[in-house]
Amino acid sequence: MDSRIRTHADILVDHCTDLDPSDDVLIRAPPVAEDLAVAVAERVGEVGANPSVSLQSERATRAYLQASDAEDFETPEHLLAMMESADAFILVTGDLNTAELSDVPTEKLAAFRRARRPIQEARMGKRWVGTQFPASGSAQKAEMSTEEYEEFVYEAVNKDWEAQRDHQQQMVEILDPAEEVRIVSGDTTDIRMSVAGMKTVNDDGRKNLPGGEVFTAPVPDSVAGEVLFDKPLLRHGREIQDAYLRFEDGEVVEHDALKNADLLASILDTDEGARRLGELGIGMNRDIDRFTYNMLFDEKMGDTVHMAVGKAIEETVPEGQPLNESAVHTDMIVDMSENSFIEVDGDVVQRNGTFRFEDGFEE
Amino acid sequence: MDSRIRTHADILVDHCTDLDPSDDVLIRAPPVAEDLAVAVAERVGEVGANPSVSLQSERATRAYLQASDAEDFETPEHLLAMMESADAFILVTGDLNTAELSDVPTEKLAAFRRARRPIQEARMGKRWVGTQFPASGSAQKAEMSTEEYEEFVYEAVNKDWEAQRDHQQQMVEILDPAEEVRIVSGDTTDIRMSVAGMKTVNDDGRKNLPGGEVFTAPVPDSVAGEVLFDKPLLRHGREIQDAYLRFEDGEVVEHDALKNADLLASILDTDEGARRLGELGIGMNRDIDRFTYNMLFDEKMGDTVHMAVGKAIEETVPEGQPLNESAVHTDMIVDMSENSFIEVDGDVVQRNGTFRFEDGFEE
Repeated sequence: MDSRIRTHADILVDHCTDLDPSDDVLIRAPPVAEDLAVAVAERVGEVGANPSVSLQSERATRAYLQASDAEDFETPEHLLAMMESADAFILVTGDLNTAELSDVPTEKLAAFRRARRPIQEARMGKRWVGTQFPASGSAQKAEMSTEEYEEFVYEAVNKDWEAQRDHQQQMVEILDPAEEVRIVSGDTTDIRMSVAGMKTVNDDGRKNLPGGEVFTAPVPDSVAGEVLFDKPLLRHGREIQDAYLRFEDGEVVEHDALKNADLLASILDTDEGARRLGELGIGMNRDIDRFTYNMLFDEKMGDTVHMAVGKAIEETVPEGQPLNESAVHTDMIVDMSENSFIEVDGDVVQRNGTFRFEDGFEE
Repeated sequence: MDSRIRTHADILVDHCTDLDPSDDVLIRAPPVAEDLAVAVAERVGEVGANPSVSLQSERATRAYLQASDAEDFETPEHLLAMMESADAFILVTGDLNTAELSDVPTEKLAAFRRARRPIQEARMGKRWVGTQFPASGSAQKAEMSTEEYEEFVYEAVNKDWEAQRDHQQQMVEILDPAEEVRIVSGDTTDIRMSVAGMKTVNDDGRKNLPGGEVFTAPVPDSVAGEVLFDKPLLRHGREIQDAYLRFEDGEVVEHDALKNADLLASILDTDEGARRLGELGIGMNRDIDRFTYNMLFDEKMGDTVHMAVGKAIEETVPEGQPLNESAVHTDMIVDMSENSFIEVDGDVVQRNGTFRFEDGFEE
């Protein structure tokens, strides 16, 4: 087996979920990622925890969905019972065909996901991690050969996460006590928001592997200005290009896109919270040096910031602060590598992708 | 997809587990049987039940077992919770490599299975079925090409099970009220046992697919005589040939085998119940016309009887009758096609494989 797969597995078991012998752990992966499931199972055995390894067939999910009536979906109690009883959860994604669910009607998929939401919620209370296996379909979506994509994934994933955490902590210490953040890029993006009272999280690759961002929640009503998300966003297999949002008093008052503007509109129309920001994140994983149409990687890319419309991430919103609620959480990305800066409480803290705590920073 | 796979799936959902829309069903299959999992998921969707489809990696199981200490095995509570909460269970077997667990020490495998026994026991209270997918490794073990093995499996599985039940019911009606059964084959097998008060079950392909036998429990102390099991038995990847047992007062008092006699001895030494018979079965699935080293098929072969040392099957032992208990249940097969007969209460009911309710029967 590729030794990089074993390294990946060790990080999942030791760093991300920190398993101990008393843990019941659920491992889910697509069949194409069986090698990673094998390596994880081996490490789980060494640790002495109790695994359930389940390879998930998206073809079976599609067949079930196509044959079902959307009104029939119920929460499967046996899956819920398993998740509630588990201590930890390792979820591997990776596709032979990223379009496997493309012919399932969107409304049916949404109804299915609603029925399974209690299982997602049960998961949130556990130690869990989501990660990626470099399958050929995922490589295709990233417009890379499978071999090159493997190299890309393992560079991003198999890192010294303590060193990465220390590096990111410098940005956490700037953002966590801050009042106001301003993001400027070219003449298309100039947006301000308050982060006062919110908590900045250091994503050192525990819940997401790769990690590599710091993120917080804007005060929902405080967001003002305009932003052009110049990195594309893939949604239900369709690409939204150059999404543009203008905010007043925290709410989207104008929106457009170069391609699939209707899809962007439908996201914003989901509910009231979908027209407000729930997250501001700053990508800091420099081993992610290209866009691969996979948000797990894209949002951590060096020299980018991302904002999500919709639900805020609970750990960024302390008790008593306003938490933006929504059924959606849609991340969108701004390239900050050129002609761009991040300002925190009036001071420039990043210019053209270089942080003020790094060599080469220009005030 | 091969239309025989869809037929197989429909039988599993409609005949074997009889799913309805309120059912939470667990479907487990090896990755090589993904097509069957897809077809089952589709039929489950049509019925409106709630599936969990889980492809099981034996490579991952081996890696976990090899890395673990045998003392570490605990019952995974999350798997137990899932099984307890499920209404029905469809288990598909089939291997790319039937020797995948061959290098795991036997004691470790036994300790692992002991830890998982509560999950097996929870399963017994559900509607469940075990079936087979014609994978290449299973074909290899059967000494058949994959294509020929596919034909063999689907002939045995995709049957008119109502007609098969009616055919078998004729034998149930002979055996169920009977007092004594005698099995004679050549000059090597002549064994008598009481089945008085026991229940004969008509296996019409519900819990096992293929089904195709009628079976009951001998009164444990009543078994007397000798039997040569002239069909081979595969156990932990080793073949026991020509197992010979001699019974007195229900207990094995002499045993031998042409090959791997030590393995036979270790089975009989498991516990006290392992030296007594727990089952007498009569194979009646004539589409199973050859031996494939797979007990799911072999024990239903036409023109055979099988006897199991060890645990009796509970549904064959009415309340108040003696139930043989053991940690093992090992089926062994006698060829009845030539120079053989079955006698029930003094009457010959089968000679050289032909039942007395069939054309060509010779008194």
